[in-house]
Amino acid sequence: MSTILERLEPQVREALEEGHLESLREILAEEHPADISDVLERLEPDQRYEVFQLLDIETQAEVLDRVGQDATRELFVRLPVEEAADLLDELPMDDAVEILTEDVPELKDQLLAAMETEDAAEVQRLMQYPPESAGLLMTEKYVHVGKDLTAAEALQYLQRVDEEVETVSDLYVLDDDNKLIGVFSLRELLRQRPDTRIEEFMETDIVFVLPETDQETVARTVAHYHFMGIPVVDENQIMLGIITVDDVIDVLVEENTEDILRFGAVESDGTDQPYFTIPLFRVLRSRFGWLLLLMVADTLTGTVLRLFDAQLAAVVQLSFYIPLLIGTGGNTGSQTVSTIIRGLAVRDIRFGDIFRVLRRELMGGLLLGIGLSIVAGTRAYIWDGNILLAVTVGFSIVAICTWANVIGALIPMIAHRVGIDAAVVSAPMISTLVDATGLFIYLTIAGLFLAGQMA
Amino acid sequence: MSTILERLEPQVREALEEGHLESLREILAEEHPADISDVLERLEPDQRYEVFQLLDIETQAEVLDRVGQDATRELFVRLPVEEAADLLDELPMDDAVEILTEDVPELKDQLLAAMETEDAAEVQRLMQYPPESAGLLMTEKYVHVGKDLTAAEALQYLQRVDEEVETVSDLYVLDDDNKLIGVFSLRELLRQRPDTRIEEFMETDIVFVLPETDQETVARTVAHYHFMGIPVVDENQIMLGIITVDDVIDVLVEENTEDILRFGAVESDGTDQPYFTIPLFRVLRSRFGWLLLLMVADTLTGTVLRLFDAQLAAVVQLSFYIPLLIGTGGNTGSQTVSTIIRGLAVRDIRFGDIFRVLRRELMGGLLLGIGLSIVAGTRAYIWDGNILLAVTVGFSIVAICTWANVIGALIPMIAHRVGIDAAVVSAPMISTLVDATGLFIYLTIAGLFLAGQMA
Repeated sequence: MSTILERLEPQVREALEEGHLESLREILAEEHPADISDVLERLEPDQRYEVFQLLDIETQAEVLDRVGQDATRELFVRLPVEEAADLLDELPMDDAVEILTEDVPELKDQLLAAMETEDAAEVQRLMQYPPESAGLLMTEKYVHVGKDLTAAEALQYLQRVDEEVETVSDLYVLDDDNKLIGVFSLRELLRQRPDTRIEEFMETDIVFVLPETDQETVARTVAHYHFMGIPVVDENQIMLGIITVDDVIDVLVEENTEDILRFGAVESDGTDQPYFTIPLFRVLRSRFGWLLLLMVADTLTGTVLRLFDAQLAAVVQLSFYIPLLIGTGGNTGSQTVSTIIRGLAVRDIRFGDIFRVLRRELMGGLLLGIGLSIVAGTRAYIWDGNILLAVTVGFSIVAICTWANVIGALIPMIAHRVGIDAAVVSAPMISTLVDATGLFIYLTIAGLFLAGQMA
Repeated sequence: MSTILERLEPQVREALEEGHLESLREILAEEHPADISDVLERLEPDQRYEVFQLLDIETQAEVLDRVGQDATRELFVRLPVEEAADLLDELPMDDAVEILTEDVPELKDQLLAAMETEDAAEVQRLMQYPPESAGLLMTEKYVHVGKDLTAAEALQYLQRVDEEVETVSDLYVLDDDNKLIGVFSLRELLRQRPDTRIEEFMETDIVFVLPETDQETVARTVAHYHFMGIPVVDENQIMLGIITVDDVIDVLVEENTEDILRFGAVESDGTDQPYFTIPLFRVLRSRFGWLLLLMVADTLTGTVLRLFDAQLAAVVQLSFYIPLLIGTGGNTGSQTVSTIIRGLAVRDIRFGDIFRVLRRELMGGLLLGIGLSIVAGTRAYIWDGNILLAVTVGFSIVAICTWANVIGALIPMIAHRVGIDAAVVSAPMISTLVDATGLFIYLTIAGLFLAGQMA
């Protein structure tokens, strides 16, 4: 994949510089839209538009499905309205909705007016669904037949199906009220004798989603059942559309990268912008908010230290272990958070399991803490030769690891329960939470063991 | 999905307790294998085996494709060899390989001897490929035709294709030496006039992978091109097999959850074990190693603090800002790491971009640091009323954020370059690295500004 890009990008740039547009048109006609979109992403807006204009409308549509938000935007603001509307007509309507609502919202009304009436109506229906919902991923263009057709008739019908229909892998059986009553695969159809009626072999136990269903749930359902697509129906099982497996894959890739960003405490803006194309200022704005919040929370550590400043002054070595202890607490908590987020994501864990989870993590934190405290305590004794300080460090690690493990399990589970994506509970958040509480635990234990030395 | 489980699990448990196995058999015959496997996962090993025995062999095969490693293992050690071998024959061979090499390696020879000769030979060929490679995901059962067939002949041929073939969405055209020379979709085939020869409409510009290709690259390629599957060929373009989209989705889900675990510094064992079924001891073993390593690295902070103990004793308030400063450094570094890991994963960033990346992150860290230092410096001045201390804190934050940003970009890029998954560079690792270096920066700056107060 990258090798195609490495060959194609210089080719395109050279042809642009030398003005060989006709030969560039021929070169591009041979390339896959996915690769063309990679090159376009790396060009300057004006060059990008120039190259885009060399593509036929089908390729343009496929390219648009793949380039990031900024590139899409910059192409659309340059395109004449009529051309842009024709292009939207060419796209699957779920992609058209994404462009109209997220990429160029200010052109929405103008473009809708210029689109084909039927497509514009579909777009307007789809636009009513909530963000990241099944309704926004679905297309109304799918293959449906009546249950009384024979296999031969269905096959004949398939040969005449509109090119705009994205997939014919699964065929849906609707009754006269458009209620979904069956489904069968093209492959099953091929196996049937020509005069078999669809009703005889269609599957009637149908897995479907509602248009309000969250896109991550849709993706997990399709992954779970190994489907090629999934129907979307309303509460009366009236068929609304289908979601195809390529959109599901896009969702999985998007959620994956979103989770990594969130876990590192970077606000993901839900777009698929390439690293270098996001203006630095926009990145910093989204990062600064989190950092500031965490830093303000971390000023609590100062308060805790002030509270114990007499002890710290009396036993100077106490302060040498502060970074080690809160670091270990933060690391333990981060591990637990990532385990719990994974468990919630793949549905191994439900909120009802909370006590089992807490018991398990409590026990786990205790055992990890005991193991680590033996190493750290011994090290402290060798270093400072103060047995009571070594015991303080040891007990503190046990207490802090246990506490970090419990907090690291509790917070993502509560977030999940109240409907927040558990992945917003980032490693930095847990580290920061454990900083102040861990210090408090450490210095309290120090007060118990080292009281004699502090007098 | 979860609602089906909530209904089905009690039903199964009740039928088991009351010994109503025949009615349980009927209930299960109506359910989707994906849901049955969810229930099996939650049963005790003996009950699981009892229920598994009630399923027909096709359902057994589909269930095995979905349950975790421990459940698969415990079923296989209970199954008579002949039944186990029949079941393996029923599975796609890539799944059989996974079971034989990862789940029950000690039964491998015995089971291979009992399998059908042809399937056993396929398994042995596939087993030679490296872990997590395309070769282990592929199946040798795909539809291939010669280029001289007509559309009508190809369609007829399709109707007789073996049931074991997983998918017929894409058809592959091979020459007499089994070299891959074309591909077309079933859908395109349906559109052709009956007497059109395949050669006339097949696509000859084929995207393929080699058997050694990493599974994540395979998944990203399929996602990139919106394919339903991808052919695997050797270096002479001889066709070896295909990888289907359901395996690609499994890889994406697996890599996603693996990345979350790794980023939290939990060693993922590459299996898809549900949270509660992993023995606590195994979890702790994999977590303890990382924690110990990070803790030992963090004892460096003690050394740094000892180095500066005169300053710390002279200006006691210096120590109050230690957790805040290293916390902010760790958070900034974690953000950068997650951004870079995402960029590398979706291939926005290549190693060759390293200087552009470093320049961008250096500038970003500087600006973030300046912003945060204004807040933290003001806060320090209000709190301690020591302008030089406030300036020390401010400058330190700028330096630490810049440093953390650069380190957070550099390390995952180097890891990626030397062939290590960038996601092993976890948030805890960066935090720990920044702890000691951040302290050093802070106390050095303190030495410059506060020299007068330390005398």
